[in-house]
Amino acid sequence: MYVPGFGEASPEKKAAKNLHDFFTYIAVRIVTAQLESYSPEAYEDLMEFLSRHSLNDGDKFCAALMRESPRHKGLAMRILEVRSSYCKNDFEWDNLKRLSVTIVEESNIRLMRDYVVETSPATESEK
Amino acid sequence: MYVPGFGEASPEKKAAKNLHDFFTYIAVRIVTAQLESYSPEAYEDLMEFLSRHSLNDGDKFCAALMRESPRHKGLAMRILEVRSSYCKNDFEWDNLKRLSVTIVEESNIRLMRDYVVETSPATESEK
Repeated sequence: MYVPGFGEASPEKKAAKNLHDFFTYIAVRIVTAQLESYSPEAYEDLMEFLSRHSLNDGDKFCAALMRESPRHKGLAMRILEVRSSYCKNDFEWDNLKRLSVTIVEESNIRLMRDYVVETSPATESEK
Repeated sequence: MYVPGFGEASPEKKAAKNLHDFFTYIAVRIVTAQLESYSPEAYEDLMEFLSRHSLNDGDKFCAALMRESPRHKGLAMRILEVRSSYCKNDFEWDNLKRLSVTIVEESNIRLMRDYVVETSPATESEK
């Protein structure tokens, strides 16, 4: 569907780009948790790198991690693999849609109810 | 799938919450464009309100718009309707998944290729 003000990109493309950074963030979480269990040294490497680099731009983060040292490069390659596999196999796309529809419905009802309650002095006096 | 570090909320829930604000933003775009065509006064109302209020939190924005004036309340109700309808009927969920998978694959390939090219002096000398 055409939405005004998106120029060349569609809303779906814009949302997919945001999800891409989110999947990188999730992949970092997964890899960090795995390393913590069985590779304390690599865990320290990654945590230290995370303290110095933002994850807001997932690709920029991975590019910097690849160039930090050969050890860090191995970690970056693992993050690339995990984000690809997570996006394709583990993320529950149907659930995302279901939750989104629920959130919009519940939010709309809540906003209207709050307004109605707020502007009903009768309701207040009944308390 | 369980992802460490998300506490009670799942990645799907977190992504759905982000999409919720995005859908509000899109609804505002759609309503603004509609008003611009056939209701210049309401268009001015909404644009002026937008200049004073952030759309980062979609629900907060709608709640404030509802309370601005009776005219603004009508605009808010329209935005609530449009975001619900857009989320359920117009947003292309299958396309979102397809684009997300493409972006992660293309980004992974690009990151590796850039690294390989950068660290290959032979390639440089061939230029």
